[in-house]
Amino acid sequence: MSSKTAITACLVIIGNEILSGRTEDANLSFLGHHLNELGIRLAEARVIADDEAVIIETVNKCRRRFDYVFTTGGIGPTHDDITSAAIAKAFGVKLERNAEARALLDQQYRHKDINDARLKMADIPTGATLIENPVSKAPGYQIENVFVMAGVPRIMQAMFDGSKHRLKGGEAVLSEAVTASITEGVMAEKLAAVQARHQQVEIGSYPFFRDGKMGVSLVMRHTDAERVEKAAADIKAMLRDLGALPPKDLDD
Amino acid sequence: MSSKTAITACLVIIGNEILSGRTEDANLSFLGHHLNELGIRLAEARVIADDEAVIIETVNKCRRRFDYVFTTGGIGPTHDDITSAAIAKAFGVKLERNAEARALLDQQYRHKDINDARLKMADIPTGATLIENPVSKAPGYQIENVFVMAGVPRIMQAMFDGSKHRLKGGEAVLSEAVTASITEGVMAEKLAAVQARHQQVEIGSYPFFRDGKMGVSLVMRHTDAERVEKAAADIKAMLRDLGALPPKDLDD
Repeated sequence: MSSKTAITACLVIIGNEILSGRTEDANLSFLGHHLNELGIRLAEARVIADDEAVIIETVNKCRRRFDYVFTTGGIGPTHDDITSAAIAKAFGVKLERNAEARALLDQQYRHKDINDARLKMADIPTGATLIENPVSKAPGYQIENVFVMAGVPRIMQAMFDGSKHRLKGGEAVLSEAVTASITEGVMAEKLAAVQARHQQVEIGSYPFFRDGKMGVSLVMRHTDAERVEKAAADIKAMLRDLGALPPKDLDD
Repeated sequence: MSSKTAITACLVIIGNEILSGRTEDANLSFLGHHLNELGIRLAEARVIADDEAVIIETVNKCRRRFDYVFTTGGIGPTHDDITSAAIAKAFGVKLERNAEARALLDQQYRHKDINDARLKMADIPTGATLIENPVSKAPGYQIENVFVMAGVPRIMQAMFDGSKHRLKGGEAVLSEAVTASITEGVMAEKLAAVQARHQQVEIGSYPFFRDGKMGVSLVMRHTDAERVEKAAADIKAMLRDLGALPPKDLDD
């Protein structure tokens, strides 16, 4: 992995409900997978509380360290939606009623249904560019390298799809996974030897339980398909020698 | 919420496979839920890569900021398991073969099955106290306020259960959730008024999609059961007024 030149991103998940264990986050795996397709590496994710000081500090640290920052959560109409106010403070800009966002809300709600709470969703940090929300209209936005999105997965995913053309990626990382019924300890030394022969390829070993038995998934990752394929061939040969794969693999 | 006096924890999830989107983390919600029962608030979680410098920096920052830190992942026998070496460096201590851990591995593996890779799992930072692993024996450990655990959820959960008696918690936070078929924008202003009447109670509003319609879960949290109950009664009355709950609720 040429990680030195990799374009990186950080996901900041804002929400007490994730930290309390009440709600399982579904945005991290979506973002990790889809950024990878664009040649951007999700290098870190942070789950933080609905706390203005924490949001400001986290966003400011992360936007300087990573090429892109994505936030999810806290941009709705209720009292506990404090993300936009915090983002404005993080950038030292005003939070102001955005005319374009206001027009989107006017389209969505009949005149009598517009209220102050809903209009709060049109309050956007000065200088931000809106991100379309085809599901429920209230937009997300981009300010510099920070993309502020909704927490509801269906809306977050639509916002990402609608704004990903703004991202500049690198080469997509390709991967191949081989799963075998073997414990890590049996193959670890041989695996290290394979890694030593393919130093540029990131080889990860991920143990799991299934039907009461331990198994392992071995994942080879690199931007170059041929390097991945060669490492995978060595991995399969190793597993075959250890009796953990059939002698002739249909994949081969 | 008396958050000033709350005992806090941070979870550090170590693993490229989570960031790539390949594996969904299952440890965050488990830990958030179970710490809460002990009166400890999971205040933050970070998902970081298998990168020694990042692990060292993250652990050192988090162990100074939070009362407890839990790490998951990277303590197995393969070449990509680098957590223990990084933890030793973070604390400025040696990583050395631990006799007690070695004895546990000797019990688990017959003499011929012990190899250098498996023995790596007995290399523990100096001064750490082991955490039992009833599933596959290779232990986790505690060093000062940092609990180092496996990433496989079944093992992580067993390690947590076996070491939670070492944690000093506060009062457990109690919660009540009310779910209604209503959009946030319709009730946000009334909800803010309820929050204003129950300032000590944390009231969270969590929208979701179900069967193509939006709904919302309102969650009231506090250490005092009576406060939670009173806030919940007000929330239900508000939802009933808005036609989002049946006129007489069996819960009442």
